[in-house]
Amino acid sequence: MRRHLISAADLSRDDATLILDTADELARVSDRSIKKLPTLRGRTVVNLFFEDSTRTRISFEAAAKRLSADVINFSAKGSSVSKGESLKDTALTLQAMGADAVVIRHSASGAPHRLANWVDGSVVNAGDGTHEHPTQALLDAFTMRRRLGTLEDRRVTIVGDVLHSRVARSNVLLLNTLGAQVTLVAPPTLLPVTVESWPCEVSYDLDAALPKSDVVMMLRVQSERMNAAYFPSAREYSRRYGLDRDRLARMPEDAIVMHPGPMNRGMEIAAEVADCARSTIVEQVANGVTIRMAVLYLLLGGETQ
Amino acid sequence: MRRHLISAADLSRDDATLILDTADELARVSDRSIKKLPTLRGRTVVNLFFEDSTRTRISFEAAAKRLSADVINFSAKGSSVSKGESLKDTALTLQAMGADAVVIRHSASGAPHRLANWVDGSVVNAGDGTHEHPTQALLDAFTMRRRLGTLEDRRVTIVGDVLHSRVARSNVLLLNTLGAQVTLVAPPTLLPVTVESWPCEVSYDLDAALPKSDVVMMLRVQSERMNAAYFPSAREYSRRYGLDRDRLARMPEDAIVMHPGPMNRGMEIAAEVADCARSTIVEQVANGVTIRMAVLYLLLGGETQ
Amino acid sequence: MRRHLISAADLSRDDATLILDTADELARVSDRSIKKLPTLRGRTVVNLFFEDSTRTRISFEAAAKRLSADVINFSAKGSSVSKGESLKDTALTLQAMGADAVVIRHSASGAPHRLANWVDGSVVNAGDGTHEHPTQALLDAFTMRRRLGTLEDRRVTIVGDVLHSRVARSNVLLLNTLGAQVTLVAPPTLLPVTVESWPCEVSYDLDAALPKSDVVMMLRVQSERMNAAYFPSAREYSRRYGLDRDRLARMPEDAIVMHPGPMNRGMEIAAEVADCARSTIVEQVANGVTIRMAVLYLLLGGETQ
Repeated sequence: MRRHLISAADLSRDDATLILDTADELARVSDRSIKKLPTLRGRTVVNLFFEDSTRTRISFEAAAKRLSADVINFSAKGSSVSKGESLKDTALTLQAMGADAVVIRHSASGAPHRLANWVDGSVVNAGDGTHEHPTQALLDAFTMRRRLGTLEDRRVTIVGDVLHSRVARSNVLLLNTLGAQVTLVAPPTLLPVTVESWPCEVSYDLDAALPKSDVVMMLRVQSERMNAAYFPSAREYSRRYGLDRDRLARMPEDAIVMHPGPMNRGMEIAAEVADCARSTIVEQVANGVTIRMAVLYLLLGGETQ
Repeated sequence: MRRHLISAADLSRDDATLILDTADELARVSDRSIKKLPTLRGRTVVNLFFEDSTRTRISFEAAAKRLSADVINFSAKGSSVSKGESLKDTALTLQAMGADAVVIRHSASGAPHRLANWVDGSVVNAGDGTHEHPTQALLDAFTMRRRLGTLEDRRVTIVGDVLHSRVARSNVLLLNTLGAQVTLVAPPTLLPVTVESWPCEVSYDLDAALPKSDVVMMLRVQSERMNAAYFPSAREYSRRYGLDRDRLARMPEDAIVMHPGPMNRGMEIAAEVADCARSTIVEQVANGVTIRMAVLYLLLGGETQ
Repeated sequence: MRRHLISAADLSRDDATLILDTADELARVSDRSIKKLPTLRGRTVVNLFFEDSTRTRISFEAAAKRLSADVINFSAKGSSVSKGESLKDTALTLQAMGADAVVIRHSASGAPHRLANWVDGSVVNAGDGTHEHPTQALLDAFTMRRRLGTLEDRRVTIVGDVLHSRVARSNVLLLNTLGAQVTLVAPPTLLPVTVESWPCEVSYDLDAALPKSDVVMMLRVQSERMNAAYFPSAREYSRRYGLDRDRLARMPEDAIVMHPGPMNRGMEIAAEVADCARSTIVEQVANGVTIRMAVLYLLLGGETQ
């Protein structure tokens, strides 16, 4: 495996399979109630968050601590960054302080890639702008594989605001690599202009896509998108693109429902759907810690004292 | 003991005594300069704070770390919560991430109780609205027992803004369980309407209560209460309900002075009283860490790897 | 060595040499890829930061964790302090919670000194107002010694806003103790009135000082100083006091360039100078962790369980 995890696009099928297999192994160990492994003792993982994201930050923090790494949280608010320090100088600082891995969340697409030029340690992209969120795609693939056995030829429908979603982009790329068939369903105003070059189908009709889906992944609606430029109203969005009980009934019996969280219950997903047995939403969170353990293990492991 | 610590009202005399005895034992170990115990290695304690409270947060953090647990701090500010995530979904997230205990501070009375419905781990109430703050009551009882030998038939006078004080309510409930006799002294506007159903006496005359007190516990005055609706002025409050040297002299010789902190020196308590030998204010802080160790130990201990 | 590190002025030549030698030893251990030492296991280091300073905070945090101490971060924002708690009561609280060391950053000169009156543990000054920043001076001296072999009779030129710089003051004091000769170069409005009593030379002519310097240390410009009262403009400052390629060429061939960071590239230092081989700026950051390990080790070490 490479030294960094910047983009789902960088992962070969072998890379991705290795991460998923490692996560399987770690999940097995954890089931035997061994909650802490000594693998990364003495290693330092820095969470460098330029955007707030408590869920993702604590998922990485829990993963690193279960591998016995030291974790240092660096929120860019009120830091040198707000005094005008460049990303490069922040990178050189973390590098000099001995960070073995830097987990970065940034509002600018490409920031993790630039960071990787300046540090010797590993860089893990925890979400950059509208670009990528590769560990989210990996945990989603892991969740599907555990539920469906394989990704090969599985039909995955991703629904909602694709335009602003790094989750959608990373999922399309990774799922394609793993052999699944992806269909995006979204209002035309919430699809990127480049979508034609993506390795997936596009549809505007959710009801037509549901019966052919093994997985339906609902994206979070950002309420600030709910204006005339993108979509007329929340109510109209929910009516056309929300997953409610009636739509759930149109899905094959063993198809699953996913959501990266945090959910807007009643908007893109009905509460009863979110909580039903076919929903994997809570599993996704648990799998997120396991996948991040696998990623940190593969990037940093093997050379501990 | 139950799986959660939500309310002092839930604690039987045996429960409370077990916690105090465990804290005694932990204090003895700590006196032998063993500062870190391996008991909770591999366990994860999440501090879920919806209100700022650095003192309480670091007390729990220190307690968990001395037991070798991993601690993850989750401040609700800037988190998914501010993006509208429900408490239930936050709970399911922490649960899925493997939190063995969630220490919650929330502005809404009853939030810890609701949280406990959704998580398999233990919930510890670190203060909910004007409702309860059970570990504060436990550390206060622990402090009294160490100073006075027993709580049985001890006369405890709690003075000040009872209306807005979860500390007062938890103390009244726990002290009654442990056999002490509690008197509340407060201006009528700062007593709850339900106070008649509480297991305690009520008085408006501090000077009359002092000579009969083994313990005088001063409550923090919230300056924002100092308006016409509750009380005429800070000066007037201090004159009628503040503990100064003259009032200290009216207390029995071996009676002690308590305050949960942070103090307004010169308002509800004079600086010279706060710092006198009969004041237990600093001991209360130290005992707070010990009591929280005991609570985490009893809730989580015994099944470590 | 004393129990606290409040001021570079308190360090005798022997004290300072012991810290530098200890840091050398720790750097050697670290080069053998032993990243974590058990020395401070069970000890608690509190980072008490009344001002934001992510760089300094994470440097101390990394140092403490590499020595296996537990670290608790206490940001004064949103804490009891903002509810009006005095520094004394905060100190008594941390003391009671068992802090073995308190690392304090405060906007008021003298705050660490006052703190030291109230705690049994060690106090480390991480910057107080315009007064001192002793670990910065120590890491700078450590960096010079590693590059130049000795400090004795070395000529160090410190350039820029001395008036508001605790870094400059601590460096002047420590470098004098260690036998170096210091020259301050600054516009008259950015020199303190007391500078005549400092153990150093003063010059207003950077170009004259450069050829006689073994070390040139550029200070950070606070943009808010760039007004008529202190200096006409950023451009004029950069022209007269900035270190660019031409000025670098006037320095002796083996002279080094230092900066405490974060830099304003293009203002007090040109980007190409910051990144050249004679710049020690990244080394300073790495040495910062090592020096702070040495300080914590010497203050707290030797009595672990």
